[in-house]
Amino acid sequence: MSKIEPRVLRGFRDYLPEEMIPRQRMLAAIERAFQQFGFAPLQTPALEYLDLLMGKYGEEGSKLLYHFRDEGDREVALRYDLTVPLARVVAQYSELPRPFRRYQIAPVWRAERPARGRFREFVQCDGDIVGSADFTADAEIVQVGASLLEELNVRRFQVRINDRRILRGLTELCGIPAASESGFLRTVDKLPKIGAGETRRLLSAENGLGPEQIEKVFGCLGIAGEPGEVLARLGGLFPAGGAGAAGVENLKRILGTVEAVGLRERVALDLSIARGLEYYTGTIYETFLSDLPGFGAVMSGGRYDGLIGTFSREEIPAVGISLGIDRLLAGLRELGLIPENRGSVASVLVTVFDAERSADAARAAAAIRAAGVNCELYPALHKLSKQFKYAERRGARWVVVIGPDEAARGEARVKDLAGGREEQGEKHETVSLDRLGEHLRKLSSSVNSSPVS
Amino acid sequence: MSKIEPRVLRGFRDYLPEEMIPRQRMLAAIERAFQQFGFAPLQTPALEYLDLLMGKYGEEGSKLLYHFRDEGDREVALRYDLTVPLARVVAQYSELPRPFRRYQIAPVWRAERPARGRFREFVQCDGDIVGSADFTADAEIVQVGASLLEELNVRRFQVRINDRRILRGLTELCGIPAASESGFLRTVDKLPKIGAGETRRLLSAENGLGPEQIEKVFGCLGIAGEPGEVLARLGGLFPAGGAGAAGVENLKRILGTVEAVGLRERVALDLSIARGLEYYTGTIYETFLSDLPGFGAVMSGGRYDGLIGTFSREEIPAVGISLGIDRLLAGLRELGLIPENRGSVASVLVTVFDAERSADAARAAAAIRAAGVNCELYPALHKLSKQFKYAERRGARWVVVIGPDEAARGEARVKDLAGGREEQGEKHETVSLDRLGEHLRKLSSSVNSSPVS
Repeated sequence: MSKIEPRVLRGFRDYLPEEMIPRQRMLAAIERAFQQFGFAPLQTPALEYLDLLMGKYGEEGSKLLYHFRDEGDREVALRYDLTVPLARVVAQYSELPRPFRRYQIAPVWRAERPARGRFREFVQCDGDIVGSADFTADAEIVQVGASLLEELNVRRFQVRINDRRILRGLTELCGIPAASESGFLRTVDKLPKIGAGETRRLLSAENGLGPEQIEKVFGCLGIAGEPGEVLARLGGLFPAGGAGAAGVENLKRILGTVEAVGLRERVALDLSIARGLEYYTGTIYETFLSDLPGFGAVMSGGRYDGLIGTFSREEIPAVGISLGIDRLLAGLRELGLIPENRGSVASVLVTVFDAERSADAARAAAAIRAAGVNCELYPALHKLSKQFKYAERRGARWVVVIGPDEAARGEARVKDLAGGREEQGEKHETVSLDRLGEHLRKLSSSVNSSPVS
Repeated sequence: MSKIEPRVLRGFRDYLPEEMIPRQRMLAAIERAFQQFGFAPLQTPALEYLDLLMGKYGEEGSKLLYHFRDEGDREVALRYDLTVPLARVVAQYSELPRPFRRYQIAPVWRAERPARGRFREFVQCDGDIVGSADFTADAEIVQVGASLLEELNVRRFQVRINDRRILRGLTELCGIPAASESGFLRTVDKLPKIGAGETRRLLSAENGLGPEQIEKVFGCLGIAGEPGEVLARLGGLFPAGGAGAAGVENLKRILGTVEAVGLRERVALDLSIARGLEYYTGTIYETFLSDLPGFGAVMSGGRYDGLIGTFSREEIPAVGISLGIDRLLAGLRELGLIPENRGSVASVLVTVFDAERSADAARAAAAIRAAGVNCELYPALHKLSKQFKYAERRGARWVVVIGPDEAARGEARVKDLAGGREEQGEKHETVSLDRLGEHLRKLSSSVNSSPVS
């Protein structure tokens, strides 16, 4: 075989152990938070029929689908998100309970232009409640979202909420025709990123709004103050019984629950949140890290009462949230909140003295593992000095040596590397092989030095 | 949008919560076992350049690759296994420690003919040791493999080992030309499945062996007895210094270590194990469930000292094992070893009495979760009887009700559903809202009724 250059595709990436160890810990915390709220795990295939995904993400989204014709001549696509597969599942399995709450943690693929913190493959962590149109479900989603971040020790974040129906009310107020609504929403969605001036320019140049319409838009979006006050003033603008009024009422109730459970400071109204995806119909959420204002949302979602109905004769309401673990990890790393590690999960290295002592070393490693201590056996007959260097590089705390003398006495030498490099100062003790596992269990539980603890 | 029929691609499948709950538990146990042996987590992209994967899995394997031309006109493929991506990673990142031991748990894709227990997407759990040609590494791999299954409470299994060099020694003894070796190995590999008669027929019809050659093959494969005895007899057949003798020596040493760590009964020699994949060069492993003899291997692997060199100027030896979680789960289910569950992760359901009591219910749920108890809040204003029915169906143990009377007294009613359906006999108590979380924590820790505990 000719040599092939080892490389990854543009926009894709490897997670080496140094990055995977904190990432795994985060994923475990996310699972705990979802389960605490009663969300049960679900998994769906990476590949779906293309026709199931087409048209669900708007024109721009459809262009980003990885799709191809498979060996059976079917048009297939890699999933773009976890929401449309959930909608398919709910429509497909009538035996699922309702209300149904599930979480799913899985990669999704989008052929986007790669950029800082934006990849073509990234893991989403989604939680959704299906089968309830009630605001109680929307409020649960806000709470589980806040819990996810709290469980990840993210101290400073804000969940900003809005309601698509308020935006619809706004387009009605401004006399924007329904056909232009999605272009208008895309522009509004950019407001926090591009600022008021550029937004005004785009509303005129791209969405064809007149100066009076633009003033009306900013008159609504600019309403400031306490959430209760903002909603009261907005409520006054919209005709009763319309979409806008329903959106205002929904947000009032959600904020009431949020306040009741002590999350008032975590949640803010933000009328400029529009979300790009076509399928949202009610509440929408976007969550930002307070210490990285320009970083963009790390968790977002909303209510999509029409999506499941595209697969089913029945209309089934649903609401959910999605956390992008890879973006969040990048953000927390920027904030210095990810502890350094050396890519090792073991605090003990058992060395192999020579070929004859190899079985003794294996026995010692087995005893240490049986005591519940993560332990590496050096898997080759290299010089002891090389094995020690490896232990140091890997951040192992203890090194076990069984030479001929120790073996003859049924003992092992245990060196504590915490003292540093100086040969003289190194602490070491001699332990009987019978007690080796228990000895290291005690040592490691007293220091808690394991890099993955 | 027109209605689209919800469906999954042939050979793919959804894992609903009832299946995902035990599967997640298994994956967590597998991670624990890998980490106990010091294997660190790694993740690689689902998509790789096609040229990296082509030719690595033999002619048959290459045909099973899902591949396509991406939007940037690159030939890409979904990964077929986790071994070739690991080899790429090792060749690509010179900063990785060596020896390097990693685990990876991820789906792989093969466009195989779907069959019972055989899917086109399935999750592999791989552990490999890179950078050591020593048998110590091979013995570590046997041990971690056995630990994976023990950690999964699989009581009856057998790791069967062989060495590709013994098979090469055999082809040399029988005068089979090198060009015919892989066809010959494919036939030998089928022996446990198709039996001796059919294997003899294929060796003649497909591999062109004469009667004398076939007798020689069966003379070797048929050597029976204690492993030590079998290896001694085999050793006598092969010329010193050749591939066969090296293979015999390797297996002797591995079995010595296996015996030293008390795993003798878990491991057996099996000279008919050949493994289909092109890249194996030394030890090969296949593991079977003793109670499902016809089910096929659930965990397999081997040494592949030449693979990394196809991506690198340096030859780097490696050995590993791969457990197929989805096949294993199917096998354990057949054996009745997967406990039933109702797809629920919460033991408590908090009901919502009416719109006015909605915030009280949310507060109660938040308190229960804060006490570390998984709890669902019923997310809609349905009749209480409907909410109770839901709780029963989901297997919740306790149901919390806060009606106007309870709310006025700052209390909640907690019903224990364990008593069954009879309204009269149901146990219920009244608890102050301040103590609700703690109360349910005590109840749930005393019964350990959580379906995911």
